Amino acid sequence: MTLSKVLDQIDRDIPAATDRLLELLRIESISTDPAYAGQCDAAADWLVADLQNLGVKASKRATPGHPMVVGHFGQNNTGPHVLFYGHYDVQPVDPLDLWDRPPFDPAVEETANGKVIRGRGASDDKGQLMTFLEACRAWKQVHGTLPGRISFIFEGEEESGSPSLVPFIKENADELRADIALICDTGLVGQNTPAIVTMLRGLLGEEIVITGPDKDLHSGMYGGPAINPVRVLARIIADLHDDTGRITVPGFYDGVPELPQSVRAQWDGLDYDGRELLDEVGLSAPAGEQGRSLLEMVWSRPTCEVNGILGGYTGDGFKTVLPSQARAKISFRLVGTQDPFKIREAFRAQVRAALPADCSVEFSDHGASPASQMQIDHPAFEQARAALSDEWPEPAAFVGCGGSIPIAGYFQDLLGVNSMLIGFARDDQIHSPNEKYDLECFHKGIRSWARILDAMNQ
Amino acid sequence: MTLSKVLDQIDRDIPAATDRLLELLRIESISTDPAYAGQCDAAADWLVADLQNLGVKASKRATPGHPMVVGHFGQNNTGPHVLFYGHYDVQPVDPLDLWDRPPFDPAVEETANGKVIRGRGASDDKGQLMTFLEACRAWKQVHGTLPGRISFIFEGEEESGSPSLVPFIKENADELRADIALICDTGLVGQNTPAIVTMLRGLLGEEIVITGPDKDLHSGMYGGPAINPVRVLARIIADLHDDTGRITVPGFYDGVPELPQSVRAQWDGLDYDGRELLDEVGLSAPAGEQGRSLLEMVWSRPTCEVNGILGGYTGDGFKTVLPSQARAKISFRLVGTQDPFKIREAFRAQVRAALPADCSVEFSDHGASPASQMQIDHPAFEQARAALSDEWPEPAAFVGCGGSIPIAGYFQDLLGVNSMLIGFARDDQIHSPNEKYDLECFHKGIRSWARILDAMNQ
Repeated sequence: MTLSKVLDQIDRDIPAATDRLLELLRIESISTDPAYAGQCDAAADWLVADLQNLGVKASKRATPGHPMVVGHFGQNNTGPHVLFYGHYDVQPVDPLDLWDRPPFDPAVEETANGKVIRGRGASDDKGQLMTFLEACRAWKQVHGTLPGRISFIFEGEEESGSPSLVPFIKENADELRADIALICDTGLVGQNTPAIVTMLRGLLGEEIVITGPDKDLHSGMYGGPAINPVRVLARIIADLHDDTGRITVPGFYDGVPELPQSVRAQWDGLDYDGRELLDEVGLSAPAGEQGRSLLEMVWSRPTCEVNGILGGYTGDGFKTVLPSQARAKISFRLVGTQDPFKIREAFRAQVRAALPADCSVEFSDHGASPASQMQIDHPAFEQARAALSDEWPEPAAFVGCGGSIPIAGYFQDLLGVNSMLIGFARDDQIHSPNEKYDLECFHKGIRSWARILDAMNQ
Repeated sequence: MTLSKVLDQIDRDIPAATDRLLELLRIESISTDPAYAGQCDAAADWLVADLQNLGVKASKRATPGHPMVVGHFGQNNTGPHVLFYGHYDVQPVDPLDLWDRPPFDPAVEETANGKVIRGRGASDDKGQLMTFLEACRAWKQVHGTLPGRISFIFEGEEESGSPSLVPFIKENADELRADIALICDTGLVGQNTPAIVTMLRGLLGEEIVITGPDKDLHSGMYGGPAINPVRVLARIIADLHDDTGRITVPGFYDGVPELPQSVRAQWDGLDYDGRELLDEVGLSAPAGEQGRSLLEMVWSRPTCEVNGILGGYTGDGFKTVLPSQARAKISFRLVGTQDPFKIREAFRAQVRAALPADCSVEFSDHGASPASQMQIDHPAFEQARAALSDEWPEPAAFVGCGGSIPIAGYFQDLLGVNSMLIGFARDDQIHSPNEKYDLECFHKGIRSWARILDAMNQ
């Protein structure tokens, strides 16, 4: 019954745990703005001190950017060695006037949906990473030690593209390698279903610039005989999908797996069909591939999106210009074993083949990363699923994630370490004004980690 | 043989005529910039004085913007009453650093292609309007009077959309009405073929804004189920033309006349096929409707062009945004009796019908003017064609004009007066740095008007 003692300790300690989080939230660790470099450093120091309080050998490690915090506990212990990842940097706070309270003066607020911790970073990722540290703290208070072997890595550049992360992992691979990584930067599914992300979509980014005439023309003098690159680009974009919503790039679906029946059944049984995702943004109908469920579209199917388009005169009023150039930023979300490099070549070939006479195209590469598929046969996955199901009203689910979380790919590729992505965010307005973290999520998140650590160390 | 005396007088007087034009070019009459209002006024004064020197009853007439110059000569004379139109305002001169000489310090320069008058307005439209005044001056020096009845109207807002023109013409319709209007603001066809514009394309301008989700989304979280308005817009634009280059808006071709065989034969016989228009801008192949000649495409066929498109993230680098909105400025050039208002409704209906679920569209009206077709059975047209053919190396042609020259429509609609558009611009970089007017065009332009006035007053 030692787990129940740990859970009781967590319940008793929630007010103090909340105060500790508020203290961390007051540090203005915005990583994208050099003016806040000192505050990023202060957040790293705060975490080093907190880890040391837990008995962890922790230190701040310099990088060309903001420092890493690395810590190790129980290196000679038996049991699985886990590497816990979080980030202490936060998003900028603009537009400041849309905040109902100063973003770095956090507080617990009563709302119609219960108590929330309000402030920049309350959810992403300070609140989430503290769930794990508070679980460790309660464990230590009950047991006098932490469970098993735990290493920690906290970065300070996640919100600015993690430029120092890959070099740091490479240089310190032997030190960081573990049996499994735990990443706390994701959310619940709906309101009450805890989720373990087992699939992350990859991303291929391309920019194309189509040039027709060598200068902008007058559409009266030239309209008719002169090719209009906006029309060419529009045709290329329109032809990237067929009438059923499938992407037309040759070979695009090579390596796209059909959802296993077991996973489909699990998703169909969820207390969540993703409709609220659309409701929140004023949409009603899933617009992706015909015959796919909404959850499939976003968790397990590849996509092609236009992220930006520009050509000709776009200011106020009207200019009868026939533009010389048109450009678009286009990205593909990838799943399974789709090969981003093969898809890039096939996409470029399709664009080139669609060019009429007198048009040329330039391509720019904006990144190519394959999808990640976690190895869910690792016993930690079933242990965590059971542990989470014990804590929350709904049973835990293995889900996909539409976005790209590069850290899981780095751990796999650079360390050979499989990741479990578990987090407790609801609709927390991360990256936006009035970011919050439900006090319930913070509390149950801490309890969840205690259960998971307990299950992994039986 | 009085015409030959006038022509001789023109030849003798060219140095002085050039000096007069240079004087007018030194006046910095940029109409779009309020800082130059005084200079616009000075240009109007200069023209009033010059008309008075010619014996014309001329005055500066106030408008809410820059003044009109109006003059009348020989109101009790017999012969056709002509109304001559030009504009004394000029385009802004930015970017100034691309000029090889100060734009308002004009001079005659020797170039590989002969002498040119270089400076802002040298061609558009000060140089062109002075061809007519210099023809009148030579006529007066030989005959002591001007031929027939001539009225003059010079506006100072042509380069800023002529806001005062329609009200002024309406208020002074009785005073301005004439047998035919002469408008000198167009060009030669190719290098040596004088042209009388008999068809002007109309213009319909539309802006559409398509909204999908009510905010910009993350393309990882939403890519798949969320409708992307850029893709919707691209499809709408792509579907505006069929595979043969015809426009698909229902009823669009109602009122588009086939070219009369006589006109087609004339165009086919021209020493000009329009290829140099494409060569100049790096194009090689006419991209308009299949089965139409290049000159047909630009002079007598309607078009649909995208003048601008914008949606999502278009700055440096890449953002995986799924945009809330996409917008385009789209214009139609109209010919014959195409009805811009019917076409607007049909276009809007086509766009609305193409909207998938969850998308809405807003339209903005950016003007609608039908095409103009001159009544070429007026005897002045054949008289002018013969006169121009006598002056230039190639016979004169009746041509179309791809652009919209609203003044001809205003004279037709508000005064019931037919226009002859005759001008002598070559590739004069009007609206651009280093604008010029070939001294040969200035000289032969003056001689052309003397011949035309002579022919009209036989």
